[in-house]
Amino acid sequence: MTEPLFPADSLAALRARLADLPGPDETAAEAASTRQANLTKPPGALGRLEDLAIFMAGWQGTERPHIRKAQAVVFAGNHGVCAQGVNPYPQEVTVQMVANFRAGGAAINQLCRASEAELSVVELELSRPTGDFTQGLALSEAELLEAMARGAEALDPTADVLLLGEMGIGNSTVAAALAYATFGGTAADWVGRGTGSDDAGVQRKITAIEAGAKRHAALLDDPFTTLMAFGGREQAAICGAVLAARALRIPVLLDGFICTAAAAVLVRLEGDALAHCIVSHASAEPGQRGLLTHLGKAPILDLGMRLGEGSGAAVALGVLRAALEAHNGMATFAEAGVSGA
Amino acid sequence: MTEPLFPADSLAALRARLADLPGPDETAAEAASTRQANLTKPPGALGRLEDLAIFMAGWQGTERPHIRKAQAVVFAGNHGVCAQGVNPYPQEVTVQMVANFRAGGAAINQLCRASEAELSVVELELSRPTGDFTQGLALSEAELLEAMARGAEALDPTADVLLLGEMGIGNSTVAAALAYATFGGTAADWVGRGTGSDDAGVQRKITAIEAGAKRHAALLDDPFTTLMAFGGREQAAICGAVLAARALRIPVLLDGFICTAAAAVLVRLEGDALAHCIVSHASAEPGQRGLLTHLGKAPILDLGMRLGEGSGAAVALGVLRAALEAHNGMATFAEAGVSGA
Repeated sequence: MTEPLFPADSLAALRARLADLPGPDETAAEAASTRQANLTKPPGALGRLEDLAIFMAGWQGTERPHIRKAQAVVFAGNHGVCAQGVNPYPQEVTVQMVANFRAGGAAINQLCRASEAELSVVELELSRPTGDFTQGLALSEAELLEAMARGAEALDPTADVLLLGEMGIGNSTVAAALAYATFGGTAADWVGRGTGSDDAGVQRKITAIEAGAKRHAALLDDPFTTLMAFGGREQAAICGAVLAARALRIPVLLDGFICTAAAAVLVRLEGDALAHCIVSHASAEPGQRGLLTHLGKAPILDLGMRLGEGSGAAVALGVLRAALEAHNGMATFAEAGVSGA
Repeated sequence: MTEPLFPADSLAALRARLADLPGPDETAAEAASTRQANLTKPPGALGRLEDLAIFMAGWQGTERPHIRKAQAVVFAGNHGVCAQGVNPYPQEVTVQMVANFRAGGAAINQLCRASEAELSVVELELSRPTGDFTQGLALSEAELLEAMARGAEALDPTADVLLLGEMGIGNSTVAAALAYATFGGTAADWVGRGTGSDDAGVQRKITAIEAGAKRHAALLDDPFTTLMAFGGREQAAICGAVLAARALRIPVLLDGFICTAAAAVLVRLEGDALAHCIVSHASAEPGQRGLLTHLGKAPILDLGMRLGEGSGAAVALGVLRAALEAHNGMATFAEAGVSGA
């Protein structure tokens, strides 16, 4: 990539720059695959750990991929659709949880420490929620581009892997709207209890999404106008970070339903737009299964988690680190003098 | 427990000592559960991580369980049933792999480093394989008791968690025989490709197990005589270590099919004999699914691994550590000033 993707003055300018996203280094991936076949174990016996090492080799462009710096970014935003009663928590919880992140008291702080990820938190105009998508656009084109740029700028270009997470009261409704717009089905297919909605709350989420989809029907055949329709800023920032990481061939660990739904809009830009992304876990939020099916991706973990914040990505990072330790550190049959079959 | 379980002069003496195995500290588990409900997240949002923290609290007898010392033990043995052509690798690979463990070149070395487990390797008379169970007993009573004692002695009584693994060419056949004797079905239900058997090799495994089960039918209603019938020493050592850990209320991470099948014989001693054990992963070896069903246990990981050595347990340890970091380090709603629903 000769030119940074962001900032972009217009969606047209951004689209032009996205025509040439790089793929993985197939030669490096092949070399890693050959190495795996020679390590002191039956071929394939490390299962997904082998696949993860080969994936990392391809995107890092080296037979022996490494994670010296794992960067975790949590994007936080607020959502006008909360006016529709889609979340049982008050909207100030977004600000309160950001303070909790900064004070080190949230789950993501502990989980990043456990897996040695460097955490940064990006607040996206929390005092200025997106528009209520049942009443109008969530984001203008300029607001969308600004939020995507914030996401791209948050990426440390020296990171060996990027973990993405989000926080925003009401954003499981936004995620469900994005997934519905991107993959179809019914609104109810994508809606779950989020932070803890009761049956009536779930119905309010469905009603809001159906109203938004009807109002914005003409916008929903394109990922960027879909983001303008529904928001939110943290979803746009996730897309910006995913695209910026792709331009630098930095592999990405997506978190659960909300993070994955945000990134998933990009597959309508290009089918393999998320080729450099791993889905960290199969969240308990029911829409995540549908996303995994549509994206053709298998999660690393399935632990019934549904917190967001990047929490699943932080736990999955430990598995990814283990995969690379095995890949890089194991002896070959020849080195160890172990007989083959 | 007033008296160590091992060494034991006879199975009768051992059985008498096993009448009084301790359970978890329900008060500590309850306190941990209450703590989880007050941490800054929707209730239950950390899924299995919450369950793991509460499980550890119960067995460690404290609201805030910790892992300062994680001990991983790999038991290695050789098996007379290899004479029946049940494994494509030559039997000397067991010794070669033990050398690889000691040199630091195997998967388990790297995975223990990644999750900060202290690895020890216990060789169980590798130059003296068990008897071929199609022809006679695999182990005499004295040999069984000796191997179980080796397992129990390997346990570091100061460990906060014990990871168990195994190595032994031919031992997926032994594991399948133990599972068949313990849980029934057909021999074929419990047989997979192990280190890489072809169809004919799989059939030889089934034939050997059926022959052994027929020969030893009178022994198979008791876990210890089942171990005498089929072996092997590493399976007996795993049982010894599991029982010794239970006596000290040290929680255990069982590895995959072979390790779990070994420990599973103990449920016919007492239904909750494995209450202090977690099954680390759903191995690709097909019999593991049946074990999980019969034991009523959910694995932490499902990564298509099928290596043994304790490899799945070492990866699962990372998830367990993450669970405890979150449990101990997170702020409560009151501490963080975050509003509730």
